[in-house]
Amino acid sequence: MDEILPATSVAPWAYESGQLRLLDQRRLPGEEVYLECESAEETAEAIRSLAVRGAPLIGVAAAFGLCAEARRVAGGSPSDRWDALSLAADRLSAARPTAVNLKVAVDRMKRRFGAGGNAAEEIRLLEDEAGQIAEEDRRACLAIGRLGADWLEKRLPPRPSRADLLTHCNAGALATAGIGTALGIVRVLHARRPVAVLADETRPFLQGARLTAWELVKDAIEVTVIPDGAAASLIASGRVAGVVVGADRIAANGDVANKVGTYGIALACRAHGVPFLVAAPTTSLDPSCPDGSSIPIEFRPGGEVIAVRAAGASLPIAPEGTRALYPAFDVTPSFLVDAIVTERGVASPREAGSLLAPRSA
Amino acid sequence: MDEILPATSVAPWAYESGQLRLLDQRRLPGEEVYLECESAEETAEAIRSLAVRGAPLIGVAAAFGLCAEARRVAGGSPSDRWDALSLAADRLSAARPTAVNLKVAVDRMKRRFGAGGNAAEEIRLLEDEAGQIAEEDRRACLAIGRLGADWLEKRLPPRPSRADLLTHCNAGALATAGIGTALGIVRVLHARRPVAVLADETRPFLQGARLTAWELVKDAIEVTVIPDGAAASLIASGRVAGVVVGADRIAANGDVANKVGTYGIALACRAHGVPFLVAAPTTSLDPSCPDGSSIPIEFRPGGEVIAVRAAGASLPIAPEGTRALYPAFDVTPSFLVDAIVTERGVASPREAGSLLAPRSA
Repeated sequence: MDEILPATSVAPWAYESGQLRLLDQRRLPGEEVYLECESAEETAEAIRSLAVRGAPLIGVAAAFGLCAEARRVAGGSPSDRWDALSLAADRLSAARPTAVNLKVAVDRMKRRFGAGGNAAEEIRLLEDEAGQIAEEDRRACLAIGRLGADWLEKRLPPRPSRADLLTHCNAGALATAGIGTALGIVRVLHARRPVAVLADETRPFLQGARLTAWELVKDAIEVTVIPDGAAASLIASGRVAGVVVGADRIAANGDVANKVGTYGIALACRAHGVPFLVAAPTTSLDPSCPDGSSIPIEFRPGGEVIAVRAAGASLPIAPEGTRALYPAFDVTPSFLVDAIVTERGVASPREAGSLLAPRSA
Repeated sequence: MDEILPATSVAPWAYESGQLRLLDQRRLPGEEVYLECESAEETAEAIRSLAVRGAPLIGVAAAFGLCAEARRVAGGSPSDRWDALSLAADRLSAARPTAVNLKVAVDRMKRRFGAGGNAAEEIRLLEDEAGQIAEEDRRACLAIGRLGADWLEKRLPPRPSRADLLTHCNAGALATAGIGTALGIVRVLHARRPVAVLADETRPFLQGARLTAWELVKDAIEVTVIPDGAAASLIASGRVAGVVVGADRIAANGDVANKVGTYGIALACRAHGVPFLVAAPTTSLDPSCPDGSSIPIEFRPGGEVIAVRAAGASLPIAPEGTRALYPAFDVTPSFLVDAIVTERGVASPREAGSLLAPRSA
């Protein structure tokens, strides 16, 4: 039986002739507005400000941001172009610290700097490279979706029972160049059997309520938003058949950095025997980090906690001048992760490194 | 050495001659507006709508709401007054299901219905009873504050190191008729040694960001608001010296119902050896519930999750029509609770029932 090809109607980016268009995710779900980025700096600002987010997607955005930059500086001398692109690459790499995909994508692009005999040829090579990065991510999502669905389905209640899967943040089409990682698995499962999603709202940026709910509603997959604090008791209640989340960086020992709040969910899953699956492309694996303690955790401005931002508006929720702390990510130790699925296969977290080995097929 | 008497400048309620004034906590931290309740129904609506909240305080509010009702129906016959007060008592008792203090307070008031030779005497007896309920809660907070501080201080880093205590929701002066339960302990500790508070923002109603931060800022105690999802990783980081929370109901076996999100924090505390202390007056102990599974958990409208409300405004955060689930409380099993402190003493949760035994002193 041929499998229905899972798809999505969500399009968070587009690139054409030096113009990168990025869906401004800060304004979702209220408005679908695209930012036009014609330089690396505009792209870096879109990444820093979270207009575009999601570990794989910021890699893709940075790659195309460098293409836009190459076109912007095409009139300069080879050495001027080199200097401009190198500076742009550094700024893009530094736009956010935790997701390693950003650095991986920028490093791939850097290897094309100065290639080709002239500016036009360099641009063509850079655009090819960026296109490949996006295409690889699109395919990785599809492979992750299928592999993760195969792994998870064995652990779900038998059809036709509906399986409720819980996810945190947004590891979906809005975070990738494809059907998503965690939500890629959901999309594949949805094509196979009854599933519904419990989406942690994911404060403070509300990626769950604003983005995961938006893209699942758009693709007609049932979704229910819950406060982050409700995840543990829903897991305890037996309602959650499995948890699937993305990752911003996975250390060599299998420790997983993901959106803050993930660690607490993993603790609850272990306490109640609920499968906890991490889905990420191999570009999120970082063998240079021996364990979670060496993954840099981004602390964002406290102001992003004490004012709720959604649909272009901002609502203060704490007394003026209140301190706030916003670690954007946390680390889930590998022993709490039941499996890591990448486009190359499903592994126990302690074997995560093996997923980076050259393909045997 | 005499201890500095901990105090608060926060006044969430006042009663005078049939008029109950309740600080509208929905409008904090932006505005300090008092609702005037001149009937039991107005009081019940204030409780249902969360204008007034906090397990002990809704008991006090309900008691004075019955006083207001008694004055409102003072012109009726004894049987009309009895009927009106009985109906009002039932409605107040049912205004919210989880906190047992509400029922305890209303039951105490019911024993005065029809007492005294006439309406004026009945009103006087009811107002005396309500005043006693409030005064007992005020004193209970002070006792809880001292007993909890004694217990916790032995487990904190030695002075002059600052101890960061994490709390969830608001178990403070805004939830009681005194200095608070969990925040009562903080206030006593603050009078003794350097402490600061990490306040979970406590979605969706934001009792932490809006209320705990507001009352601690008002009393000049350092407070830092964090997203609920950040609690587990901050506990893992070693920064949190102890967690202290309130309770809406404590079952006979020591299981604790408290604001949703509490259970996940308790799991993280146990994983990292951080003391987890529950503070509540004995009116929160319910020997008729054998364990947590028999505590009714209130599910509030999903609309309260997908629109953030603060300072009188409402901001939608999810696509229109998105489902949402809002269990307002969760149950922390007794084995995760290091101690329960009431005004009568500190006990291990399995001995919680003993705190209801007649005082020996």
